[in-house]
Amino acid sequence: MAQNVTPPRGMRDFLPAEKARREHALGLIRSVYAAHGFDEIETPVMEDSSRLHAGLGGDNEKLAFAVMKRGITADDLAAAAASGDALSLADLGLRYDLTVPLARFYATHRAALPPVFRSIQIAPVWRAERPQKGRYRQFVQCDIDIIGDATPLAELELLTATVATLDALGLTGCTIRLNDRRILAGILGSWGVPEALRERALITIDKLDKIGVAGVSAELVEIGAVSADAEVATALEGLTTADWHLASGVVPPPAWLDLEAYAELLALREAVPGATIEFDPTLVRGMGYYTGTIFEIAHPEFGYSLGGGGRYDGMIGRFLGNDVPACGFSIGFERIVDLLEIRDAERPRAVVLVHDADVPAERLLALKRELVASGSRVRLERRVKNFRALLDRVTADGFDAFANVTADTADASQLELRELGA
Amino acid sequence: MAQNVTPPRGMRDFLPAEKARREHALGLIRSVYAAHGFDEIETPVMEDSSRLHAGLGGDNEKLAFAVMKRGITADDLAAAAASGDALSLADLGLRYDLTVPLARFYATHRAALPPVFRSIQIAPVWRAERPQKGRYRQFVQCDIDIIGDATPLAELELLTATVATLDALGLTGCTIRLNDRRILAGILGSWGVPEALRERALITIDKLDKIGVAGVSAELVEIGAVSADAEVATALEGLTTADWHLASGVVPPPAWLDLEAYAELLALREAVPGATIEFDPTLVRGMGYYTGTIFEIAHPEFGYSLGGGGRYDGMIGRFLGNDVPACGFSIGFERIVDLLEIRDAERPRAVVLVHDADVPAERLLALKRELVASGSRVRLERRVKNFRALLDRVTADGFDAFANVTADTADASQLELRELGA
Repeated sequence: MAQNVTPPRGMRDFLPAEKARREHALGLIRSVYAAHGFDEIETPVMEDSSRLHAGLGGDNEKLAFAVMKRGITADDLAAAAASGDALSLADLGLRYDLTVPLARFYATHRAALPPVFRSIQIAPVWRAERPQKGRYRQFVQCDIDIIGDATPLAELELLTATVATLDALGLTGCTIRLNDRRILAGILGSWGVPEALRERALITIDKLDKIGVAGVSAELVEIGAVSADAEVATALEGLTTADWHLASGVVPPPAWLDLEAYAELLALREAVPGATIEFDPTLVRGMGYYTGTIFEIAHPEFGYSLGGGGRYDGMIGRFLGNDVPACGFSIGFERIVDLLEIRDAERPRAVVLVHDADVPAERLLALKRELVASGSRVRLERRVKNFRALLDRVTADGFDAFANVTADTADASQLELRELGA
Repeated sequence: MAQNVTPPRGMRDFLPAEKARREHALGLIRSVYAAHGFDEIETPVMEDSSRLHAGLGGDNEKLAFAVMKRGITADDLAAAAASGDALSLADLGLRYDLTVPLARFYATHRAALPPVFRSIQIAPVWRAERPQKGRYRQFVQCDIDIIGDATPLAELELLTATVATLDALGLTGCTIRLNDRRILAGILGSWGVPEALRERALITIDKLDKIGVAGVSAELVEIGAVSADAEVATALEGLTTADWHLASGVVPPPAWLDLEAYAELLALREAVPGATIEFDPTLVRGMGYYTGTIFEIAHPEFGYSLGGGGRYDGMIGRFLGNDVPACGFSIGFERIVDLLEIRDAERPRAVVLVHDADVPAERLLALKRELVASGSRVRLERRVKNFRALLDRVTADGFDAFANVTADTADASQLELRELGA
């Protein structure tokens, strides 16, 4: 019987053309990052449930897919029913990001890794989010991280490698926005936000793109972070509109500006030629674990960021029991893959052999083998009545040429290749 | 605090050297299969639980990891406790093979696929097996399948592409063993095995490698498939030792031999030059869904098969409601990856820049950028007291050369590259 055969909700199949686009883009990202001295690693898609729910994943922890224990007994079910704790039946979960697994990986393997470890992780993650346009329950992240370097050289290497990768992908015109959690702390301090409400206040400021200056200042009053919203609105307005080229001396530095953090941002800006890099003192980035520099890639054509990252010195050491400096950058692969054009020159010539039904199989295979050996990709297609439709179909599938094979075709020298499409 | 930081039981992390080996091998497999006209697709790692437990997965269904529903209520838990059915709390599961997802994918997308669809799937699968040497709970399968071709050309294309892939991987000396389910049916018929016990008898014959002729014939009696074990033992002995070169006329064909199936096997054998292909009438392959030809790759150095497959005409159409001819071959990637040597010439030259602490970051990045642009892979390493240990470490990491960078190094022309190792 025919059945419902769609993939699970919020997840996607990839047909050949789309799969080829994705693998091509991932291959490019891999090779540029590798050239820049990063090393790819892989971890299992599942981690222990307790590790995924250790408080490092922020809101994503709630979105984790839980994997049930094997061999659950009637007693286990009764105990779960009594406690009301469904998660007691799960011992594993699918990762919701690549940072928690990286922290676990580093704790396991640090003795075998260089003192400064530059990792690449290119892999799917899963979040049980409400599916919506452009948001999926399985999606690929491309992360690079530098672990063990407390100096701004780490940020510079990340930005250089990222800019080179975007260039290689043909994604020109991106802007990298920079900020530093220490600068945000200075701003909140200047507004008199109590220490206990700062994390909460940052979450509010992070909504600036969505609810605007008026919305943010109203919410800051509502949560008790500040008392007078007019004043904060003026300050926010100033933050979003000022020209931050302090280095040229145009603007005298405001009292709240952490000058050491700002000097580092300016140095970053100068050291990555060929990229548009902007300072944005209102940039927050969602995760609570950032401790220093934060970055985000924006593209003028899109209302969302294409990726981002920052310094998170407290986190990698969590499973290790001591602090380890770390800094990372994640490209939101699903958001960029649709922007990419695959250049034709980069794939082998693809040829279709259209054969009559009476050509012996051994002959077909010998012809195919000969063309493959000469560097072509080859597909066999049995001749059908509607020949024009066949040619249209293989053209759409990306083939470049075809040749007819009949019972009289003795070897490849007798094939007359004709170009498709064009 | 320090915690238990190993990956989940039976699953593995891959460090840079191992990850590079794996990606290199997978890239080779991908490109050879693509050249032979196969197209890569991808499906989500999860499928609906009902689909994974529809009877197509054989024993693997019991090994599926179950993914819990989101938002399980106290009522759901109480109902599961009452029924004792833990799986009622799961709506999804991790795939245990790539065949069930392929059948689902084909049912969803057949209108967008060519009439004969040659698919590549290279992806992880998960089975909650008891972990043991060489057996993992997450492992990669490399499957090719031809859907929509009922002729032996499908088998020929699969074998040709597989032999070419093994060659490209440097895996020489493999033997491909061939049989046909119709031939096995003939043998069971000649022993008078009742129809209802044939599937069960095949499972027993599949143990020939492990329990030998005596063990198999005893078990066939035990399950009631045959009555006299001495007779069957003699017959089995004959099957495993005979010379099956019937084509040369040495042996007159036994009465049980399905001559049509056998002629097809002989044609397969002749049409794939450069490979050792043997007929083995006792070859079974585990899965119940095979209907015709079955194959297995063996390597003289290993007691297990490196991969296998066969024709399974009844299965792909299961989710579609009608029959679709299909034939597939799966390489057991985890079993072959350790046999492979990566040839050095295939990766870019890798260079380490060993720098003093006082070299400005911008200078380091400019030097790195210049070497990357010339095609090298570049890692920065801060100079340490034990320089010899540093060189040993980067040599072990696969780097080819190093250069010292001091505050006096102005540009790349002043770098003195020295070879490492060798």
